[in-house]
Amino acid sequence: MGSSIEIINTGNELLDGRIPNTNGQWIARRCSEKGLAVRRITVVGDRLDDVASAVREALDRGAELIIITGGLGPTPDDLTAEAVARALNRPLRLNEEALEMVRRFYEEKGQPMTPAREKMARLPEGAWPLRNPTGAAPGFLVQHGRARIVALPGVPEEMKAMFELHVGPILAEMAGERARYEAYFLAYGVRESDLAPFLEKLSRTNPDVYVKTHPRAEEGRYYLEIYVATIASSASEARRKMEHVIMALSEHISGLGGSMMPYRPE
Amino acid sequence: MGSSIEIINTGNELLDGRIPNTNGQWIARRCSEKGLAVRRITVVGDRLDDVASAVREALDRGAELIIITGGLGPTPDDLTAEAVARALNRPLRLNEEALEMVRRFYEEKGQPMTPAREKMARLPEGAWPLRNPTGAAPGFLVQHGRARIVALPGVPEEMKAMFELHVGPILAEMAGERARYEAYFLAYGVRESDLAPFLEKLSRTNPDVYVKTHPRAEEGRYYLEIYVATIASSASEARRKMEHVIMALSEHISGLGGSMMPYRPE
Repeated sequence: MGSSIEIINTGNELLDGRIPNTNGQWIARRCSEKGLAVRRITVVGDRLDDVASAVREALDRGAELIIITGGLGPTPDDLTAEAVARALNRPLRLNEEALEMVRRFYEEKGQPMTPAREKMARLPEGAWPLRNPTGAAPGFLVQHGRARIVALPGVPEEMKAMFELHVGPILAEMAGERARYEAYFLAYGVRESDLAPFLEKLSRTNPDVYVKTHPRAEEGRYYLEIYVATIASSASEARRKMEHVIMALSEHISGLGGSMMPYRPE
Repeated sequence: MGSSIEIINTGNELLDGRIPNTNGQWIARRCSEKGLAVRRITVVGDRLDDVASAVREALDRGAELIIITGGLGPTPDDLTAEAVARALNRPLRLNEEALEMVRRFYEEKGQPMTPAREKMARLPEGAWPLRNPTGAAPGFLVQHGRARIVALPGVPEEMKAMFELHVGPILAEMAGERARYEAYFLAYGVRESDLAPFLEKLSRTNPDVYVKTHPRAEEGRYYLEIYVATIASSASEARRKMEHVIMALSEHISGLGGSMMPYRPE
């Protein structure tokens, strides 16, 4: 699979179920659209040890790109920079460039620097600060061996703006021409367990094409959602790879007395 | 914190961002309502090695309850039972009680047993099958040292029904009389970084009460959402613990020229 990506989302509000992890999903989607596989998403709370071990474990698993969200603000439970520093065994340093970004943000609002604000400019040694176009807290990027660690804020609007600005180019470089191509189908009149043996054969003979069935029910009526995807360098290459898998699947379902039709989710 | 809970959600559809991890959030909410802390949520794909290591790592971190969702169905990428067996170093065995559950499910639909259906009854040695009141695949529970591992289906309706049936009593036993009590506020006219030093003092002097600020913006207007929570054995105990923290916070915000008012999210 080549390059491996892990996402770490921090925040007690994610661990106690107050809010859904939309940041994790959004980043995962962005990566997979480029044909890049996210290997794991980890959610930890605002605890120094837990964030630091999540980072260390991702490095130990050989992740090439680790994207962290949350914990960059001014409050005492914002501790991502300290946790990354600890995971990499580096000291935390006041970064002059980051300090300038923070200072400018508050200056425009006519507000002074304070120790809590200065804290947002303390980064792991050797980290590059990443400009935050909409909020106060800079993100940062650290290179550690082959791995790149990118820390972004948890506020979704800030996270997304900074992702496009700073992570987009990294993904483009990792992906090259690749992209993910996908198709959705609905199948009626056939159960997942009826399809299982055929799916096993299909995925063995077409390892490049990913097929996944999801059983659904609506008003008591059972049906399957079928997702077919592949990674290719062009739409025509993707069509070539997926076409006969889709045909074979459709014929097999007809043979079992069911029917399959394309659909667009949402 | 005493008892520690980890959630593992499996499924490629979560890792490529096709769907949000609603199962993880729902389970986390259920646990935290009982005053039980979820320490980590891990999302991995349908890969035997990845699911097995996620389980092993949670055990190594000393989790007492590990709740896994997904991967119990009949298709070849449903491999949670095998992954748990591998993590615990136990063989996978055809479980007679589980087999009976699966057989009965299909019998009611007038459908025969097949190898793909039988696969859903293959559980780690020593596991108890958990009845699935709405779907075909049984869940299972394994005790391993002090840790309990519960595997539930990924289909949300089945997962929720089985959670209430089989995990609810475990949580009740872990929680005793405890529950989480919480309150939400909005604060205007004050920035998060202005509050930071006071919050630090407040959380040091009131370690039992959790206070978290979330910066928000609406039509360009900046405000803070403030979440205050505690774990207590009764509503009156919770009020006693939280009341003076809320008062102190409100006074401090007024002193800074801002205002704070209660609100109900959603």
